[in-house]
Amino acid sequence: MPPTPLTAELQALDAAHYLHPFTDHQALAAKGARVITHGEGIYVWDSEGQRLLDAMSGLWCVNVGYGRRELADAAHAQMLKLPYYNSFFQTTHEPAVRLAARLAELAPPVAGRRFEHVFYSSSGSEANDTNLRLVRRYWDLLEQPQRKTVISRRNAYHGSTVAAASLSGMGAMHAQGDLPIPGIVHIEQPHFLQHGLAGESEHDFGLRAARWLEAKILELGPERVAAFIGEPVQGAGGVIIPPDSYWPEVQRIVDRYGILLISDEVICAFGRLGHWFAYEKFGLRPDLVTFAKGVTSGYVPLGGTLVGPRVAQVLIERGGEFNHGYTYSGHPVACAVALANLDLLEREDLPGRVRLDTGPYLAQRLAELEAHPLVGRVQSCGFVAALTLVRDKARGLPFPEEQAVGMRCRAHCFGGGLVMRAVGDRMIIAPPLITTRAQIDEMLGLIERALDATLAELRAKGWF
Amino acid sequence: MPPTPLTAELQALDAAHYLHPFTDHQALAAKGARVITHGEGIYVWDSEGQRLLDAMSGLWCVNVGYGRRELADAAHAQMLKLPYYNSFFQTTHEPAVRLAARLAELAPPVAGRRFEHVFYSSSGSEANDTNLRLVRRYWDLLEQPQRKTVISRRNAYHGSTVAAASLSGMGAMHAQGDLPIPGIVHIEQPHFLQHGLAGESEHDFGLRAARWLEAKILELGPERVAAFIGEPVQGAGGVIIPPDSYWPEVQRIVDRYGILLISDEVICAFGRLGHWFAYEKFGLRPDLVTFAKGVTSGYVPLGGTLVGPRVAQVLIERGGEFNHGYTYSGHPVACAVALANLDLLEREDLPGRVRLDTGPYLAQRLAELEAHPLVGRVQSCGFVAALTLVRDKARGLPFPEEQAVGMRCRAHCFGGGLVMRAVGDRMIIAPPLITTRAQIDEMLGLIERALDATLAELRAKGWF
Ligand SMILES: Cc1ncc(COP(=O)(O)O)c(C=O)c1O
Ligand SMILES: Cc1ncc(COP(=O)(O)O)c(C=O)c1O
Repeated sequence: MPPTPLTAELQALDAAHYLHPFTDHQALAAKGARVITHGEGIYVWDSEGQRLLDAMSGLWCVNVGYGRRELADAAHAQMLKLPYYNSFFQTTHEPAVRLAARLAELAPPVAGRRFEHVFYSSSGSEANDTNLRLVRRYWDLLEQPQRKTVISRRNAYHGSTVAAASLSGMGAMHAQGDLPIPGIVHIEQPHFLQHGLAGESEHDFGLRAARWLEAKILELGPERVAAFIGEPVQGAGGVIIPPDSYWPEVQRIVDRYGILLISDEVICAFGRLGHWFAYEKFGLRPDLVTFAKGVTSGYVPLGGTLVGPRVAQVLIERGGEFNHGYTYSGHPVACAVALANLDLLEREDLPGRVRLDTGPYLAQRLAELEAHPLVGRVQSCGFVAALTLVRDKARGLPFPEEQAVGMRCRAHCFGGGLVMRAVGDRMIIAPPLITTRAQIDEMLGLIERALDATLAELRAKGWF
Repeated sequence: MPPTPLTAELQALDAAHYLHPFTDHQALAAKGARVITHGEGIYVWDSEGQRLLDAMSGLWCVNVGYGRRELADAAHAQMLKLPYYNSFFQTTHEPAVRLAARLAELAPPVAGRRFEHVFYSSSGSEANDTNLRLVRRYWDLLEQPQRKTVISRRNAYHGSTVAAASLSGMGAMHAQGDLPIPGIVHIEQPHFLQHGLAGESEHDFGLRAARWLEAKILELGPERVAAFIGEPVQGAGGVIIPPDSYWPEVQRIVDRYGILLISDEVICAFGRLGHWFAYEKFGLRPDLVTFAKGVTSGYVPLGGTLVGPRVAQVLIERGGEFNHGYTYSGHPVACAVALANLDLLEREDLPGRVRLDTGPYLAQRLAELEAHPLVGRVQSCGFVAALTLVRDKARGLPFPEEQAVGMRCRAHCFGGGLVMRAVGDRMIIAPPLITTRAQIDEMLGLIERALDATLAELRAKGWF
C-alpha cells in the first residue's frame, strides 16, 4: 500500500531538511522515516494510522504518559503569565524557586543531610557538563586544583556535548572527533553477562567490578581524582543492572579516598526504578545527582543537578561567582510543567505503584519469557528491563553480530504495534509509569508475537 | 517599606534552594532576589508591583514580547497532541520537519546555494557544542584529521558547556576549571574603542583586526585549522559592532585557506539586526549558523544549527551515522512554538520594521544621548545598542573599575523601571522587536533619568 499523501510529504521534507540525532541520514532517506502524529496514555499513532504501544516512554522520559491535560494547561498558563525570564542578574521567578524547593523536599536525605540546592539546565547533557565544571570548581576552591580527573565507565551514557560524551563510555562516540577530552578516564562496566568469570557468583563479580574503581584511583593517585560518575542502572548501554554488592562497595571506595560521587539519574529518577531518586534504592550517598527526562515527563526540555551540602557549602561560602549558566537555566515554563508533573507522579503515587505493584508484576511476567527459545536472560528493575536474545540458551551463546538479530526483532516489534529498543541483541523497555497490569499483559503479548516472528525469520534463513 | 509576604517567602526559598546562573550566591542571598511575576508586551512586573520596561528582551530572546497568546496556544495544542517524541530510531514528527523546512526557506542562499539542513538542540550552548563535533567530523571524513583547531575571539560568548565555554573568550570563565579544552585558540576582538590605534580609521582597524585571523592561521599552519567562529555582532561581550571592513576581510581569509566559517547568530538572527539572519546583513557566507533564543522568542528552550551544503553533503554522503544528539533534539513542543513564533515575526514583519523603521529611529534617538555628560560613544545595529559611560568625554577616559559605574547605572535603571544590562561601563540594550516608536521615546526617557541619577550619585561621591 502506498503511503498517504501526508506521510509522503513529511517523509520527503524530513529527508530534505532534518538531520536526526544518531542517524545515518542517507539510509534513513532511502527508507523514509516513520511519522509519529499523536499520543494518548501509553500509545502513540503514526501517520498511516498504526497504533504503537510505546514501551520506551518516548526516550525513557514520558513517565506520566501522553496527552496529560494538566501539563498542557500548566504550560499554557505559565506562558500567558511569564513565558520567559532569566535569573542571571539578581532576579528570580516563582516556578524556578518552587521547583527547587520541591525537589529539595522530594530528595531523600543522605546521612541525615538534605539536598538543598538545585542548578538548572535544559538537558541531561548540559547537567553533566555542568557537573564537570562544578566538580573542578569545588576542588579548586579547596586548593586541590590537581584533583581534576573524573572516572566513568565504559558503555556509560551521560550525554552528547563534548564533555558529556567524554564522560560517556561509548566507543562509537569517542571514535568521532577527538573524545574524551583530557581528565576523563573509564573503567569497565559492572556487566556480569559480559565480564563475569566462569564459576564466579554475581555477588563476587559486583565486588570485583567495584574494585576496578579502586585500582584506577590508585593508578592515577588518589590526590588527582576529583569524582566518580555512574548511572545507578545503565540505560542506553542496554539496561545493565549491577549486582547488589556493587554500589555499596563503590560507596566505600569513594568515601575512603574522599572523592565526589555523581549519581546520573537522568533515566533512573522520578519513579522509573520505583523511587523518587534511585540513590535511595541503592543506598548511595551521592554529592551530585543529575536529573532530566522524567522531571517534566519530557513535555518541555529541562535538566539539572541536585547539589548536596558538601559541594554547595564550598561553592556558596568560598566561591564568589560561579561563571556558568544557560539562558534557559530555570526556564519558567519548564519549571511550571515540572511542578505539574510532580503533582501527577505524587497524586497517582507512580513511584510507589512501580515499586510495590506494577514493577514486580512486570518482572514476573517478563520472567516467563525465559521459556522462549530465543531468550537467554531477562533482567528488570522497576520499570526498566532487558531480554538478551541468544542463539543457544543452554550455553548462552550470542548470535553473530552481522546477523543483526536485535534490529530484526525491533522491526518485528514496530510491525506488530510495539516500540521496543535494541542495544545489540539486548531488547530493552522502559514503559510509562502509568502502565496498568492489563496493559503489561497486552505488552507481553506483543513482545511474544515479535519474538515468535523473529524466530520464524531466523529459522527461514537457517540461522536458528 | 517591608516586602510583601509573597516576596519575602520567595526570596527566602530562592536563597535556600536555587543556585542561579553566573551568580555569587552569598551576595544574592544577603540582598534578596527581585521576583519577576508576569509580563505583557515589552513590560514585566515584579512581586512588589513595580513595572519594568524590559529593554533586554529577557536575555536577548523575547523578540515578539511577553504574553503572546498564539505561542501559548501552539504549545498547548501540541502538548495535547504529541508532547514528546524522539527521532533517534527512524521516526520523525511534523513540527520538527515543518520547522526544518521553514528555516531552510527563510535562510537566504549563500553564493546561490541554500541552507537545506537543520540539526536541533535545546540551547545555544548545545548548538555550538554540536558545531565543534560537526566540524571535526567533517574534516575527519575528508581525511584531514589534523584539521582540528577552531579559532575564536577573546570576549566572544558562545555558551557555557565545556566546549562552548572554551569557544567563548571570557577570561572569567576560563579561570574556572581548566578551559579552554585543547584545539581552541583565540584572537583579539574587533573592538575599535579598545584596540584601535591613535589616528587609525575604523575602516583600517577593521582590516587589521581581520588579519589577526590570518596571522593566527599562518602561525598554526593552515592545514591544522578547522574553522573560525564568530558572532556577527558580539552580544554578551558588550555589543561590539565590528567596522564594516571586518567581515568581508574575514570572509576573504577563510576562503583563502579553505577553513569553515561558523556564524553564531544566537542573538543576531530572527530580526534582532533587522534581518532573518545576520550573515545576510554582513554579506557573510557561513558554512554553519548557530541559532537559539529568537527562534522561539524564549518561550520554550530550542537551539540548533543550520548546516550548509558544504558540510551537509560530506556528512550525509560519506558519514554513515553521526554519533551525536540530544533527547530533546527537535522537541515537538519547542518546534511547534517556533513555527508560531516565526508566523508572528513574519505577519508583523518584525525584521523589516527593525531594519527600516524602528531600528533607525532607535539609533537616532540613542545618538542624542551622546550629549549627556556621562556618555562617550553610542553604538547601535538594528535592535542592539551600547552606550559607553566615561569620566571624561573629550579624552574618552574610562572610570576606574572599582567605582563600578556601570553597575550603579544599572541599579538606577531598575529603580526607575527599566531593565538595562551593564558590561563593565557599557550599558547595553536589546529591546523586544515589537517596541514601537512611542515606546522607544518612553525608553529613552527612562535611560536619561537613569543617567541623570547616576551622574548625581557620582557627583555626590566626588567621582565626577
Ligand atoms: C543517564 C543519562 N544521562 C544523560 C543523558 C543525556 O540527556 P540529554 O539527551 O537530555 O542530553 C541521558 C540521555 O539519554 C541519559 O540516559
Ligand atoms: C552568541 C551566543 N551564543 C551562544 C549562547 C549560549 O546560548 P545558551 O545560553 O542558550 O546556551 C549565547 C547566550 O547568550 C549567545 O549570546
